[in-house]
Amino acid sequence: MGEPARELAGLEYQGDAIRFAHRIHALIPKCPLLENFSHGEVRLLAQFMEVYRAEAGVELIREGDGGDFMMMIIEGRVDVNKRDRWNTPQLIAQVEAGRTLGEMSMIDGEPRFATCVALEPTLVGVLDRENLARIIVEQPLLGAKLLMELVLMLSQRLRATSDRLLDLMDAQSQGSGGLLPEP
Amino acid sequence: MGEPARELAGLEYQGDAIRFAHRIHALIPKCPLLENFSHGEVRLLAQFMEVYRAEAGVELIREGDGGDFMMMIIEGRVDVNKRDRWNTPQLIAQVEAGRTLGEMSMIDGEPRFATCVALEPTLVGVLDRENLARIIVEQPLLGAKLLMELVLMLSQRLRATSDRLLDLMDAQSQGSGGLLPEP
Repeated sequence: MGEPARELAGLEYQGDAIRFAHRIHALIPKCPLLENFSHGEVRLLAQFMEVYRAEAGVELIREGDGGDFMMMIIEGRVDVNKRDRWNTPQLIAQVEAGRTLGEMSMIDGEPRFATCVALEPTLVGVLDRENLARIIVEQPLLGAKLLMELVLMLSQRLRATSDRLLDLMDAQSQGSGGLLPEP
Repeated sequence: MGEPARELAGLEYQGDAIRFAHRIHALIPKCPLLENFSHGEVRLLAQFMEVYRAEAGVELIREGDGGDFMMMIIEGRVDVNKRDRWNTPQLIAQVEAGRTLGEMSMIDGEPRFATCVALEPTLVGVLDRENLARIIVEQPLLGAKLLMELVLMLSQRLRATSDRLLDLMDAQSQGSGGLLPEP
């Protein structure tokens, strides 16, 4: 590839991810998305990703923005904030190397759900929708594996989030009155 | 196929889904999973699915059970119930033809999240994990499309559920104290 697919404001382009394949492979134990990937598959995937570097304090993703890519944290630490009803950012998670960010927007094209800020110098691998589509056409089995892992990850998050929601609704004794958006 | 892949207690095996392909195709406008499928793709998919019929009152899926298949409602209406902390079933949704049930367990193999009961005579198409795996190997592009739609569906449900959860947490002024299970 050689050319960055996009300008990411405030981020420094580091080239395509092939050079980082061994570091991405080393993330596997802490990376739900890659947990069933072989070294060869990581190398293949890396050919479709680009790497960027962010200094501490830089926004990687901003809530409400458009954006058709996801990021995998290769190194560093990231705060995830979402604005509450009073428009005040609230910390909803703090994540580290191995975590992926922004998968939902990569897939559904909806605005970003939360803002992700680097807490220290952070390296991220970027995969955008166009390259995901290329993987599916050019490397269908790798594409299916990646999509399967995405489905698995989202399914587990949805279970956990739905459990939390139902617990809170129970606590408020709203049980029978509160249908889930989608069960 | 000709032989049912499994006995589903209380359900009546109707054969493989090819015979129902035109009815499944007619579901597309109300079926998020199939929204981008052509008639040919629906026919192809139907070769990997089986159809069952349930009388009113029959449980299609029981909360807590194992089960590696999803169901697509071809005809009928289904209540979705989940037990609250006092073990009392609470209605969390009522769904109709076009809706899919049980995708999460098909993918992650975890116990069923909720109980699904037919409210009237109901026809369902069943896709299990083994046949999903066969689709991916034998029809990789169809497999990728199906997985992509699953990711999209789960992503939209996760957004909606997370929004509801954050709203409730806001309402309880737990904002900054409540990290989401996964953002």
